[in-house]
Amino acid sequence: MKTVDLDEIMAWEREYRRAFVNTLSGIKAAFLLGTQDINDRNNLGLFASIVHLGAAPPLLGVVLRPPDAQQDTRRIIQINTHFTLNAVSVDQIESAHQCSARYPSDQSEFDACKCTPWFSTHHLAPYVGESPLKIGLKAIEFADVKANNSRIVVAAITEIHLEEKLLGIDGQILPAAAQLCGVVGLNAWHTHHPAKNIPFARVI
Amino acid sequence: MKTVDLDEIMAWEREYRRAFVNTLSGIKAAFLLGTQDINDRNNLGLFASIVHLGAAPPLLGVVLRPPDAQQDTRRIIQINTHFTLNAVSVDQIESAHQCSARYPSDQSEFDACKCTPWFSTHHLAPYVGESPLKIGLKAIEFADVKANNSRIVVAAITEIHLEEKLLGIDGQILPAAAQLCGVVGLNAWHTHHPAKNIPFARVI
Repeated sequence: MKTVDLDEIMAWEREYRRAFVNTLSGIKAAFLLGTQDINDRNNLGLFASIVHLGAAPPLLGVVLRPPDAQQDTRRIIQINTHFTLNAVSVDQIESAHQCSARYPSDQSEFDACKCTPWFSTHHLAPYVGESPLKIGLKAIEFADVKANNSRIVVAAITEIHLEEKLLGIDGQILPAAAQLCGVVGLNAWHTHHPAKNIPFARVI
Repeated sequence: MKTVDLDEIMAWEREYRRAFVNTLSGIKAAFLLGTQDINDRNNLGLFASIVHLGAAPPLLGVVLRPPDAQQDTRRIIQINTHFTLNAVSVDQIESAHQCSARYPSDQSEFDACKCTPWFSTHHLAPYVGESPLKIGLKAIEFADVKANNSRIVVAAITEIHLEEKLLGIDGQILPAAAQLCGVVGLNAWHTHHPAKNIPFARVI
């Protein structure tokens, strides 16, 4: 087994360190985050740090990196509060990945990355038409990380649009049924497959 | 496509709603979180909401659910600050899953779940000997979510112990090389496999 300490990590070349630390936390489901700015321009960005915060009320957390990295998304969510999360299936990988490029604020990633904006009647932000699992959210709180200026958007789920095959009989979403993808770090896209389903663990 | 709104979700039976909302955010890498309490007792819990917060300095975020759910872990991290995250490989699924049971505070999950505590010379919390990827961390900040009393532990990485085969030539961790697992919701364990590696996206 290889041991690496903090001094060694900090002495590494920047790109190597970035690849290492970004991949340490392992696979995460990939989502396209959709917003609409005050000029009715539709924006889209790739996010993989989405966490479950609670089921009643249904809350998700979205980690936003420091302001310089995701300036548009951060600013728009703060003003508009409405946004969408759209899961990425295996045939959307290239277009989703391209959404992580830094397009200028006046250019819609929907056009640049060939995604189709789709609106529901009850939500003010654009969904990705091609996505098999679309989640509508409203930001209700911001938890700030002082250590490096990251921000966790706490968001209430307002509606969900999903392909029927994604919904299991007991309420579970079955991501593999629509070939939903995850990403390890910034560029390693992965598919995933059920290995074992184990009931709620009890003390034995 | 099926549409579900918030009223419908809140009207569902509790277990169905819990399964649905817990799985919405998709696959997440599974980790066993190791701590040692003030009586030198080694504790272990299953966590899947680990997020990357930054590479320099290397920071991870760990979402802790409201106090009643993960009381021991929450209390110990607040006092001791040192803890470990240990990735779970496919042959560890059963023992890792069993660690999510609510054992009494005076019982070590290491014993109950047949995991071997292992200590490095420079860290005050126990690692899981069997894990192919062990991360030593120190909590430096707590970001609280008022909406439901969740807490995000902001932690600095202090050291890493990993099997050599996990480390790619460019610094990337390759989780599939050690059959590391992810979990969807609370009980659906998944393996994952590389689909596509795409370089950093640029505006085209």
